[in-house]
Amino acid sequence: MTVPGPIDPPARLLMGPGPISAYPSVLRAMSAPLVGQYDPFMTAMMNETQQLYRGVWATANEATLLVDGTSRSGIEAALVSLLRPGDRVLVPVFGRFGHLLAEIAERAMAEVHTIETDWGQVFPVSVIEEAIVRVKPAVLALVHGDTSTTMAQPLDEIGALCARHGVLFYSDATASLGGNAFETDAWGLDAATAGLQKCLGGPSGSSPITLSERAVEVIRSRGRVEAGIREDGDPQASDFIRSNYFDLGMILDYWGPRRLNHHTEATSMLYAARECARLMLIEGRAQAIARHRLAGAAMLAGVQALGLGVFGDIAHKMNNVVAVEIPERVNGDAVRAMLLDDFGIEIGTSFGPLHGRVWRIGTMGYNARPDAVYTTLAALEAALRRFGVPVPSGGGVQAASDVYRAG
Amino acid sequence: MTVPGPIDPPARLLMGPGPISAYPSVLRAMSAPLVGQYDPFMTAMMNETQQLYRGVWATANEATLLVDGTSRSGIEAALVSLLRPGDRVLVPVFGRFGHLLAEIAERAMAEVHTIETDWGQVFPVSVIEEAIVRVKPAVLALVHGDTSTTMAQPLDEIGALCARHGVLFYSDATASLGGNAFETDAWGLDAATAGLQKCLGGPSGSSPITLSERAVEVIRSRGRVEAGIREDGDPQASDFIRSNYFDLGMILDYWGPRRLNHHTEATSMLYAARECARLMLIEGRAQAIARHRLAGAAMLAGVQALGLGVFGDIAHKMNNVVAVEIPERVNGDAVRAMLLDDFGIEIGTSFGPLHGRVWRIGTMGYNARPDAVYTTLAALEAALRRFGVPVPSGGGVQAASDVYRAG
Repeated sequence: MTVPGPIDPPARLLMGPGPISAYPSVLRAMSAPLVGQYDPFMTAMMNETQQLYRGVWATANEATLLVDGTSRSGIEAALVSLLRPGDRVLVPVFGRFGHLLAEIAERAMAEVHTIETDWGQVFPVSVIEEAIVRVKPAVLALVHGDTSTTMAQPLDEIGALCARHGVLFYSDATASLGGNAFETDAWGLDAATAGLQKCLGGPSGSSPITLSERAVEVIRSRGRVEAGIREDGDPQASDFIRSNYFDLGMILDYWGPRRLNHHTEATSMLYAARECARLMLIEGRAQAIARHRLAGAAMLAGVQALGLGVFGDIAHKMNNVVAVEIPERVNGDAVRAMLLDDFGIEIGTSFGPLHGRVWRIGTMGYNARPDAVYTTLAALEAALRRFGVPVPSGGGVQAASDVYRAG
Repeated sequence: MTVPGPIDPPARLLMGPGPISAYPSVLRAMSAPLVGQYDPFMTAMMNETQQLYRGVWATANEATLLVDGTSRSGIEAALVSLLRPGDRVLVPVFGRFGHLLAEIAERAMAEVHTIETDWGQVFPVSVIEEAIVRVKPAVLALVHGDTSTTMAQPLDEIGALCARHGVLFYSDATASLGGNAFETDAWGLDAATAGLQKCLGGPSGSSPITLSERAVEVIRSRGRVEAGIREDGDPQASDFIRSNYFDLGMILDYWGPRRLNHHTEATSMLYAARECARLMLIEGRAQAIARHRLAGAAMLAGVQALGLGVFGDIAHKMNNVVAVEIPERVNGDAVRAMLLDDFGIEIGTSFGPLHGRVWRIGTMGYNARPDAVYTTLAALEAALRRFGVPVPSGGGVQAASDVYRAG
C-alpha cells in the first residue's frame, strides 16, 4: 500500500452530544514524553490525578482513579466488580444509556430488573423507591444524564433512599460530570463513572471512577490477585470478579501503595485526564458548571428564537445538550451535512425513538463558550434558510446573546 | 487543594521492557484536534488504520482493528469472545504472561489447561502437539514473546498443527510485534493481539487485534446487539459474549460498514496507533525488524563485554529485550536508581522467580537506535564501577559498536 501522510484533521467545531473539541492544553498534554510506569514521576502523577479527581467528583473517596478505556469501560468495571452473578440490580431506564447499564449487568450475569419511563422524562423519587422495595436489589444502577434524551435524573435524594434500603448506589455520569451539579459524597453515591469526551473536554479513552468505602468493601470481599504475580497471603476469593481487566480490586492495588502490576497505565491518556481535571479546578468546579448552565440556556433560547421546538421536559434538561425538533419536511441529515461541509460544525443525530426527529446540539467542555454558541446558531439559521425553513433573521444569535448579557 | 501546573515530565531514556519512549511523531499525532465519531474523516482514518495494521500484522484479515484499552484489553477481548464458558483452552506457560492468559481464560469461565516449562526456555512443537492431543482444546492461547523471561516462542509450525486438530490459534504478540518476525497469515493464526508501548513505539492504551475468518465465525455465532440500539433481525444468541466492552462482534460492527455505535472510539489513541503503524510501514516491516535485531545483538554483545551474564536460552531471545544477571553482592535496585537519577535512563526490574536476579534491558521502537544502546551501556558501565563491580573500560560500548559496524 502507499503509506499515507501524518494525521491532519479538518477544522471542526464539535457541537454534538460528544465527543466534543478538546481543550487545546489537553491536546498538548498528550504530546508530553512518556515515562516508565514505576518512575517516581509517574506514580506521583497518578496520585496527583487521583487527588484532582476527588475535586472533580466532590468526594473524599480514597478509591478515586481512572479505568483505561472509554467511558463504558468504567461502567463495566463498576458493574462487573460490584455485582456477583445472580445478584439483583435495578436499572431505571429513561433513555439509551439505561438500556446499556441493563445490558452490561445482564452480561455480568446479574438478575436485571428495569423500570422505564417515556423518553424525555425522568423518574420521581417515589417510583424509584417503590421499585427498590419490590425488587430488593443489591445495586441501583442509574444514569445521571442521558444524552439520548438530554434528560438529567435528579440524584440528590437517591443516596439516602439507597442507604435506607441497604442498596449500593451506582451512577453513570459520563455525559453530565463537569457541566452539571454532581455531588458524590453529598448525594451518597457508592460508585460513579465518567468519560473525558463530554463536559471534561478531553478525548475518549479514559474513564474516571470513584468508589465509596462500602463499594470497596464489596470489591475487596471478591479479591483475587492474578496468577503470575500472586504471593503467599494474597486473597483468592472463590466468587472472584469475572474479568481481569475490569477487576477493580486489582486496579486499586495498582493505583494504591502496593503498586501491584496490572495493566500498563495508558500514560498519555493519564496526562489528558489530569489536564481535564486541572482545567476544571483552575476554573473552579462551581464556575465550570455555571458556564455550562449559561451556554446551555443561551443555546436553548437561540434555537427557540429560531422557531424550533425542543424535545423533552426542559426543567430536567442537562445543561450541556439540547434536543431540537427537526422542522417538518426538512431532511435532518441534509442540514447536518451542510453544517459540517460548509461551516465545519458538527451537530448530532439521534438514537431509537428520536431518530430522524431531533438534532442534538451540545455546549460542553471547551465549546461551552459564547462564540461557539453564536457561530452554531448563525450557521443553523443559514442552513435552515437554505432548506426553505422560514426563520427570523438573526433571532437565534440575538436571543442567545440576550441570555449571555443577562448573565 | 493547590492546583498543580501543566504536565512536565523529566527527560527519560526508557530502556526497560516497555513502556518505552514513544516516537516523537506519535506524541505529536496525539495533539491533533478531535473530530466527531462519524465524521467522514474519522471513519476514513479508522479504515486507513485497519489497512495499515494489515501491513503490520502481515495479514489479509478483514477483521483487523483496535480495542480501546491497554494490551491486556485486547487479550481479554480475544479470549472472552472466542471462549464459551466451559470451553477448553490450552495455555502453554513459559513466563508471567502465560499465567495471565490462563487467568483471563479462567475468569471467562473456560476450562483452563496449562503446561509449563522452565523460565528461560520455550516449548518444542512436539510438546505442544502432545498437549493438544490430550486436552482437545477449543483454543490454544500462546504468548509469542514474554518479556518476563525475554523468550520468544517459535510460532511458525503451530498454526498448521492447530488446523490439523481443529483448534483455534490465538497468540499474544504484545511484546514482540514490530521487533520480531510475526506472520499472521503465513503462520496460520486465528487471532493475535498487541499493544503500542513496546516495539511499535507508542503509548499504552490501544490494542491492535487481528482475527481470521474462522475466528470471526465463532464470534458471529455468539452475536448479540446490545439493548438500546438493537433492531428487528439483529442477532440475539443465547450464548452471548459475557462482556459488552469486549464483545468483538459489536466492536466489528462499529468498525465495519454498519458503523453500529458501541463505544466512542478513543480518537487520540487511534491517531497514535495509526502513526505507529505508519512509521513502521514507511521504514518497511522487514527493515524495522532488522533494526531491532541489530540493536538487540549490539546490546547483548555490550552487556556480555561488560562481563555480565545473560539469562535464558539466547537462541530464543526476543530481539528487543535482554535479561542481564545482576552481579553478586550488587543491589540491583540501587544500580537502577542511579541510572534513573543520574543519567535519566530507565532499565527494568523483574517478576517472580527472576525478581532481584536480573535487570531487563529493552531496545525497542524509537529506542532501537545505536545512540540509545551506546548511552545505556556507557551509563551501566559507570554505575557498575560506582558500585564496585570490576568492568573492562569501554568494553560494552566497543562491543556494541563492533556489532553495528559489522551490520
